Amino acid sequence: MLERQTKGLINIDPLQTGGKLTEEAKKALIEWGDGYSVCDYCTGRLEEIKSPPIYDFIHKTLPDFLGCDVVRITTGAREAKFAVMHSLAKKDAWIVLDSNAHYSSYISAERAGLNIAEVPNSGYPDFLITPEKFGEVVEEAGKKGEVVLALITYPDGNYGNLPKVRKIARLCQDYDVPLLVNAAYAIGRMPVKLKEIGADFIVGSGHKSMASSGPIGVLGMKSEWEEKILRKSSRFKNKEIELLGCTARGVSIMTMIASFPSVKERVKNWDEEVEKARYFSSRMEELSIIQLGEKPHNHDLMFFHAENLYDISKKMRDGRFFLYKELKRRCIHGIKPGLTRFFKLSTYGLSKEEIEIVLRAFREIIDIKKI
Amino acid sequence: MLERQTKGLINIDPLQTGGKLTEEAKKALIEWGDGYSVCDYCTGRLEEIKSPPIYDFIHKTLPDFLGCDVVRITTGAREAKFAVMHSLAKKDAWIVLDSNAHYSSYISAERAGLNIAEVPNSGYPDFLITPEKFGEVVEEAGKKGEVVLALITYPDGNYGNLPKVRKIARLCQDYDVPLLVNAAYAIGRMPVKLKEIGADFIVGSGHKSMASSGPIGVLGMKSEWEEKILRKSSRFKNKEIELLGCTARGVSIMTMIASFPSVKERVKNWDEEVEKARYFSSRMEELSIIQLGEKPHNHDLMFFHAENLYDISKKMRDGRFFLYKELKRRCIHGIKPGLTRFFKLSTYGLSKEEIEIVLRAFREIIDIKKI
Repeated sequence: MLERQTKGLINIDPLQTGGKLTEEAKKALIEWGDGYSVCDYCTGRLEEIKSPPIYDFIHKTLPDFLGCDVVRITTGAREAKFAVMHSLAKKDAWIVLDSNAHYSSYISAERAGLNIAEVPNSGYPDFLITPEKFGEVVEEAGKKGEVVLALITYPDGNYGNLPKVRKIARLCQDYDVPLLVNAAYAIGRMPVKLKEIGADFIVGSGHKSMASSGPIGVLGMKSEWEEKILRKSSRFKNKEIELLGCTARGVSIMTMIASFPSVKERVKNWDEEVEKARYFSSRMEELSIIQLGEKPHNHDLMFFHAENLYDISKKMRDGRFFLYKELKRRCIHGIKPGLTRFFKLSTYGLSKEEIEIVLRAFREIIDIKKI
Repeated sequence: MLERQTKGLINIDPLQTGGKLTEEAKKALIEWGDGYSVCDYCTGRLEEIKSPPIYDFIHKTLPDFLGCDVVRITTGAREAKFAVMHSLAKKDAWIVLDSNAHYSSYISAERAGLNIAEVPNSGYPDFLITPEKFGEVVEEAGKKGEVVLALITYPDGNYGNLPKVRKIARLCQDYDVPLLVNAAYAIGRMPVKLKEIGADFIVGSGHKSMASSGPIGVLGMKSEWEEKILRKSSRFKNKEIELLGCTARGVSIMTMIASFPSVKERVKNWDEEVEKARYFSSRMEELSIIQLGEKPHNHDLMFFHAENLYDISKKMRDGRFFLYKELKRRCIHGIKPGLTRFFKLSTYGLSKEEIEIVLRAFREIIDIKKI
């Protein structure tokens, strides 16, 4: 039996807090675990399957939830980004990316053969991406070649910053550059709709933020892009080339569907999640652990700078692994082994009691040096 | 609760017979169902994760099983094929494919912008792909442009034919064209090793033939291709571009690992599976339902031509859906609704008793016309 060692621990790993399965999803796991289970009544296209109810989910539920015309399921957010980039790529063309972008955004652009122009952030301690800088870089890149796409990360996965995405969308529109919003840490956690943003594409992650088994992503777009991104094979007329004909054909989509009613509900409680994060941040700062990124913070993903923990680590037998081990001793998982000075964590979905347990743990760990 | 309607039925859908989960995999489903669960101790690369034991599985177990130097996990067989094609693609270049190839092989080539030269099969009733024809087409394509890859489907998913793949590999070597073996219906069912074949790449499917939750694929290759196919990002030095940095980060790889000991064992019983298929085929032919493709047959996937069932369908109230419904009444699932004259099925993993139940069903259904 392959046991998961972190089972039962309080999980503060930003990658994992939004991907924990609901009870409904756990039932779907067993029911639909077999490979190709969803294909029982498939007539050639995943999004046309009526039993299980994938058709409604892709054609009605998700477009409504994401506020967009057309939705497809992909094998992950990165695969969704690559599908868009690969469709729009031209020889010598450019993409504009915010410098807080996830590594997979860069790599997708690299794989699609695009030149990359990077929008710098404002640096320590806020690391903000401003619309002004974004506009400047789009303009500069436009002088070097055709800019086929811009990408903004909303929020980014390092600092949990939420840039002014509507303003960035308007700017991109002015430059006639389509904008993709990477909302892998937004969709399924907080309210976000493509139409309200005014961008062209939106990308989400099932395993990151929609309580799904991985890997699975969602790609929403304006209808005007459908023909280009979802172009069909010349030979297999019902198969979409960029999706290689079919994507998340299995338990990943079934857990997403099963969790969806809960996910839709939990998004309504976003304000509480933000409050919780802000409370956590303020208590950490009382311990002289400084929260970087936007303040007050607007997301459960937070990045901290802990000079004091770093100092302690230099004196501990376990060295830089001491923080990880001390947290583990207190049944807390999610800060990468070896980190002490800079680390990120997430308070998403934690109860108030769990928040206090985590805060108490940090308090105790800081007090270690006094012993 | 999203219930699976086909639960408990005898399943003869070729897509599904090799993807049924083992008991071990079902346990892994629950244990590792949460999104990003396998990332608990990730230090940046899926195949380097030691807990759960992904490192050993990708670096030792699978290379040994597939008889190749280097293995990577992908989000499906098609994604593996595309990764190779996209890496090798050049402007105006060609790929040679057998005409029995899966649609996703064509679409992968289309997505990679390759010109496609097709090796015709021998037509009704055998639909064979011969090394001679394969060589001819490689030669012809070479006159039109550079052939960057050849692909042979072993076996194909329509007729279950196993072409003379070693001979095809030697031929490709003579023409200095790398060969990819699409073994989605072989790996996990029957013994197959890249080194014994003498090809360059081998691709398998977890959900199709390795008792895994979908979607997941395996890509094996000779070490000489590692640098090209698994080239790293210029900016993120440990991330492989064609894999977008990470692939099956979730329950799909855990079910594959959990099922693997059983899969390794069941491959040893391949001769029995072939015997079972041949027995089934011979009994079907006694009912004047003709097995197309290779004879005697060498795989559990079989294609049948049933003129008699087609004739009956014309007189039935349910028309062409009668066969599907009659089988369903007898608790048998897997022949696509609406097919009567030509259909495929698989006897993989069926007990002898189940084989007899399916044969009896066909006998009874054919007798309907006599009532």
